Amino acid sequence: MQYRAPVREMQFYLEHVLGAGRLAETDRFAEATGEMTEAILTEAARLAEGVLAPLNRAGDETPARLENGVVRTSPGFADGYRAIAEGGWVGISADPEHGGMGLPMVMTTCVNEMMSGACLSLSLNPLMSQGQIEALEHHASEELQALYLPKLISGTWCGTMNLTESGAGSDVGALRTKAEPNGDGTYAITGQKIYITWGDHDMAENICHLVLARLPDGGPGTKGISLFLVPKYLPTEDGEPGVANSLKAVSLEHKMGLHGSPTAVMAYEGATGWLVGEPQGGMAAMFTMMNNARLGVGVQGLGQAEAALQQAVAYALERTQGRSPVEGGKGTIVDHADVRRMLLTMKALTASVRAICLDLAFSIDMARATGEAAWQARAAFLTPIAKAFGTDVGCQVAEMGIQVHGGMGYIEETGAAQYYRDARVTTIYEGTNGIQAMDLVGRKLMDGGAAARSLLDEIAKTAAAVPEGFGDGLSAAHAAAMETLDWMLATDNLNDRFAGAVPFLRALGLTLGAHYLTKAALANGEEERMQIARYAVRRLLCEVPGLCAVAREGAEDLYALDAEALAG
Amino acid sequence: MQYRAPVREMQFYLEHVLGAGRLAETDRFAEATGEMTEAILTEAARLAEGVLAPLNRAGDETPARLENGVVRTSPGFADGYRAIAEGGWVGISADPEHGGMGLPMVMTTCVNEMMSGACLSLSLNPLMSQGQIEALEHHASEELQALYLPKLISGTWCGTMNLTESGAGSDVGALRTKAEPNGDGTYAITGQKIYITWGDHDMAENICHLVLARLPDGGPGTKGISLFLVPKYLPTEDGEPGVANSLKAVSLEHKMGLHGSPTAVMAYEGATGWLVGEPQGGMAAMFTMMNNARLGVGVQGLGQAEAALQQAVAYALERTQGRSPVEGGKGTIVDHADVRRMLLTMKALTASVRAICLDLAFSIDMARATGEAAWQARAAFLTPIAKAFGTDVGCQVAEMGIQVHGGMGYIEETGAAQYYRDARVTTIYEGTNGIQAMDLVGRKLMDGGAAARSLLDEIAKTAAAVPEGFGDGLSAAHAAAMETLDWMLATDNLNDRFAGAVPFLRALGLTLGAHYLTKAALANGEEERMQIARYAVRRLLCEVPGLCAVAREGAEDLYALDAEALAG
Repeated sequence: MQYRAPVREMQFYLEHVLGAGRLAETDRFAEATGEMTEAILTEAARLAEGVLAPLNRAGDETPARLENGVVRTSPGFADGYRAIAEGGWVGISADPEHGGMGLPMVMTTCVNEMMSGACLSLSLNPLMSQGQIEALEHHASEELQALYLPKLISGTWCGTMNLTESGAGSDVGALRTKAEPNGDGTYAITGQKIYITWGDHDMAENICHLVLARLPDGGPGTKGISLFLVPKYLPTEDGEPGVANSLKAVSLEHKMGLHGSPTAVMAYEGATGWLVGEPQGGMAAMFTMMNNARLGVGVQGLGQAEAALQQAVAYALERTQGRSPVEGGKGTIVDHADVRRMLLTMKALTASVRAICLDLAFSIDMARATGEAAWQARAAFLTPIAKAFGTDVGCQVAEMGIQVHGGMGYIEETGAAQYYRDARVTTIYEGTNGIQAMDLVGRKLMDGGAAARSLLDEIAKTAAAVPEGFGDGLSAAHAAAMETLDWMLATDNLNDRFAGAVPFLRALGLTLGAHYLTKAALANGEEERMQIARYAVRRLLCEVPGLCAVAREGAEDLYALDAEALAG
Repeated sequence: MQYRAPVREMQFYLEHVLGAGRLAETDRFAEATGEMTEAILTEAARLAEGVLAPLNRAGDETPARLENGVVRTSPGFADGYRAIAEGGWVGISADPEHGGMGLPMVMTTCVNEMMSGACLSLSLNPLMSQGQIEALEHHASEELQALYLPKLISGTWCGTMNLTESGAGSDVGALRTKAEPNGDGTYAITGQKIYITWGDHDMAENICHLVLARLPDGGPGTKGISLFLVPKYLPTEDGEPGVANSLKAVSLEHKMGLHGSPTAVMAYEGATGWLVGEPQGGMAAMFTMMNNARLGVGVQGLGQAEAALQQAVAYALERTQGRSPVEGGKGTIVDHADVRRMLLTMKALTASVRAICLDLAFSIDMARATGEAAWQARAAFLTPIAKAFGTDVGCQVAEMGIQVHGGMGYIEETGAAQYYRDARVTTIYEGTNGIQAMDLVGRKLMDGGAAARSLLDEIAKTAAAVPEGFGDGLSAAHAAAMETLDWMLATDNLNDRFAGAVPFLRALGLTLGAHYLTKAALANGEEERMQIARYAVRRLLCEVPGLCAVAREGAEDLYALDAEALAG
C-alpha cells in the first residue's frame, strides 16, 4: 500500500473553505498565490510518496540503536533526511534572510502533514529543527543567528529541544539542570534530560540542543529558567564543527512506536552553552515555540489518520469475505454496513482535523501578516483543539484502521498497527491532551470567551444553512457547546472547569469539524462532500450533547472517593 | 507493580448483585457454596499473583520463536504452564467423570479473569484446551473421550482450534482444507490453517488440533464442513504419544502484542484425524464451543482492563508532578481532576464488564442446572455484549492507562503499553466485534425481543430506585435503549439494523453496566460503591442517547458514496 499525499483535499480547503487566497493579498505573504501553493504541494507530495513513505516500515522494523556511544539510524533514513534537507523543506517557513523559504504556516502545515503521514519517525527530525529555528529567530543574538540559522535551515546541522527531566515532565518548573557562567560569555551546562527526540544520530554534521536550565541566581519554579544553545561539536572560528562538547546520549528508550526516531537520555557534564534570550527568560522563549509545535503535533495526528484511512480503504476494497449483504455488492468487506461506518467515521474525522489545523495555520499567518488581535486570539483558541483533538483522532482513526483489517490488523507486516503505535505518543508529548484541555478552559477563556464566541457564531451561521437531510445535529451541537461555554465562564472555581475540560474540547473539535465539512459541501455542492458532511452532522455530532452535559458536571464528585479504593 | 486478583470484587458481585447463591440450591452445582467459592478463588489468586503475573513482561520481551521446526516458548512459561496444569485449572469446568472439577461457569470466569489479567499470553493456552475439552465432551465418541479427555483435563496434553484459512476468516464457510477417508475409520487431513493460537510449543507431551475440514461429499459453504481431532503425535495402543503425525507449524506471526503466545500457520499434509461429531456437523460442534469462547474472550478484555487500572492507580498515587490544584492534595497526579476522570472511568467500565460477564456465566450455569429456556435466552443475548463490550472496554481502559502514565506510558519497560497491545486482538478474534453486534441485532432478536425486553425491564426497576443525586441518566438510557430496540424489531431490512449494531451494542453495554453498579451500591450502601455507581450513571451514560440515535439511522446513507472516494 502506497501513501498518496492528499494534495487536492488540502487545496480545496485552503481555497474554498478558508479563503486562504486572502494571504496573497497581504504584503508579507504576497507570493503565496494559488500557483505557488500548487507547485510547492506537488513537489512535497513527490518527496513524501516517493522517498519517505518507502522508509516507514524499515524504521519500525530496524529501530535506531546506540552502539559504542553513537546512534545508528534506520536503513535509508540518512538518504531520506538528505532529500528533505536538499529540497529546502527544513527551512520552509524560516526567514529568507538566513536561507529560509519564508512560506506561510498553511503551507508548512500541508508539507508537514505529508511528511508525517509518509514517515512520522523521520519527519520528527526536521520538525525539531524547525522549532529550534523559530526559537533562535525570535530570541537569539544576532551572532548566534548568523552562525546557526544558515546551518539549521539548510539541514546541514539539526536541532533538538531539551525540556523534560525525570522529575520534571508536565511540571517543567521542577527541572534541576544547572548553568554556570564560564566568565567568557558562555555557560557550563550540567544535568540530565529525558525524552529527547532525535537527541543524537549520524545524519548531520552537528546537532544543536536547546536546553532549559537554571542559572545560579535562578529562583525556583518556571520563572528561574533560562534557555541555552548547546551544540554537540563546538563551532570553530570559521563556523565548522570543531571539538566535541561535554555531552552525550547515554541511552535510547524502547518505545511502543516511532522506533525509527531515536529518543535519547542526554547527559550534559559542564557542556558549553550559549544563552538564548534573556536570563530567566527561558519559559517565554519555549512558549513562543511550543504554540506552533502544538499545531505541528496535531498535524502529526492528522498525517497518521490520513495514512491509516488510505490503507484501510484500500484493504476493504480488495479483501473478499463471504456473501455480500447488499444487492450488486462486489463481495469485498466494503459491502458491509459496519465497515462503511468505520471508513466514513475515519474519513469525516480526518477531514475535520485537517480543516481545524489549516484554519489554525491560516489564523497564525493572518495574525502575522496583519497584526490584528482577533486573528491572534483565534489562533490561540484553536491551538489546544488542533493539538488534542488532532492527536486523539489520529489514534482513534488508526485504531479503527486496525479493526477494518480484522486479523491482519494485528500482524505487524500489514503496517496498520504501526500507525497506531506511532501515533500513540502524540496525545502525550508537547503537553498531554489533558493539559491542552486545561489550557482551553483556563487561559484561553481569559478573554471572557470572545474568541470562543466568535468561532461559535461562525458555526451558528453554518447551522442555519445546512442542506436538506442534514437534520438539526449542527444546531443542537452548537447550542450544547454554547451552554457549556457559558457555564465555564460563569464557573469561578477553575478545577470545576478542568473536570469537564477534556469532554468539552472533544465536543468543540467534533462540532468545528462538522461545520467545516458542511462549509466544504456548501462551497461547491459536490455529492461526495455532501455525503461526508451529512455523515458527520447526522452521526458524529450525536456525541456532542452528552459530552457537553458531562463537561458541566464539575469536580466535586471526582474527589468523593479515595483513589486507593479504585483498584481491585 | 504487582497484579492483585480482585477476589473481593468478584465475591461481592456473585453474592450481592447476581444472587449466585442460587446455584448451590441446584442439584448440578450443589457444591458451589460460598465457602467453596472462597477457597477456589483464593487458590487461583495465589497462582495468578505469585506465578503468572511475574511472567508477563518476559513473554513480551522474549517472544516465542520457531527454531528448526520447534517452537521455543518464553522464559518461565513452561513452569507457569505446569503450575496451571498441576493446580487442576485446565479442567476447572470439565466433567468430573474424566478428571475435571465440574465447577460452574461463574467460577471458571473468575479464574480466567485472574489468569488473563496476570499473563494473557500464557493463559490463552489453557483456554484453548478448555474449548477443546468442551467440544469433545459434547460431540466426540466415547472412545475419543476416554483417550483424550483425561490427558487434556490434566494438562498433560494441550488443545488448539483450527478454523481460519487465509481466504476464510469471518467467512468460515469458504475454507478449503480437505479430509479424505483412510478406510480404517480415520481421515487424511490436508490444508493450511492460519492464526492458530498456541499451535505448537514445547510445554506439553502432545498437542491436539481440532480442525475444520471438508469431506469429499461435503457441499459448499458452512454446511459441508466437518470437525476432526488431529494430534501432533499419534497415540499408541496404550494411549501415549507415538509417531509424529504429518503436520507442522510452518511459521509464527509477528504480532502487535501477545508475543508470549505463539500464533502459528499450521500445515497438514495427509495428517491422520478422527471425526468429531457427525459428518457435515462441524459448524454445529464449533458453535457450541464458540459461544462459551466468546464469554472467555470478553473476560480476557476484563482481565487486561483490571490489570491496566491497577497499574494506573498505583502510578497516579505515586507520581509527583507540580502543584496540587486542590487544597490538601498530596502533590501526586491523582490530585488532578482529569486524572481522576480517567481513573474513575476505567474503574466504572471495568466493574461494568465484570458484572456483565458474571451475569452471563451465571445465566449459562442456571440454564444448565435448570434447563429453563429463559436462562438460555438470557445467556444467548448477553454473549455478544460480553464479548464485544468487554473487549472494547479492555482496549479503552488500557489506552487510558497509557495516558495516565504520560511519557512513561509510551516506554515499554513500564508495561502500560503492553496491556493495550495484548488486549488489541480481543476485539478481532473469536468473531470481530462488528460480527458480535450483527449477531445481537440479528439472531439474538429472533425471539421477538423477549430476552432483550426482560433485561431492559430489570434495568427499569433499578432506574426507578436510584439513590438521590444520581439524576435521571439511567432512566434516560433505558428509554433510549427501549426506543432503539423497538426500532430494530420494526425494521425488516436486516442491513438497516446492522448499520446501527455497533453503537446499539455499546449503548446496551454501558446501560447494563451502570445498572449493575447501581444494584451493587443499593445492595449494601457502601460509600465507595455509591460513588462509582453515581459516576457511571451521571457521566458514562451521557453517551447512550447519542449512540441510540445513531443506531436508528439505517444503512442507506452509508452506501451513498463510492468507497473509492474515501481516501485522499
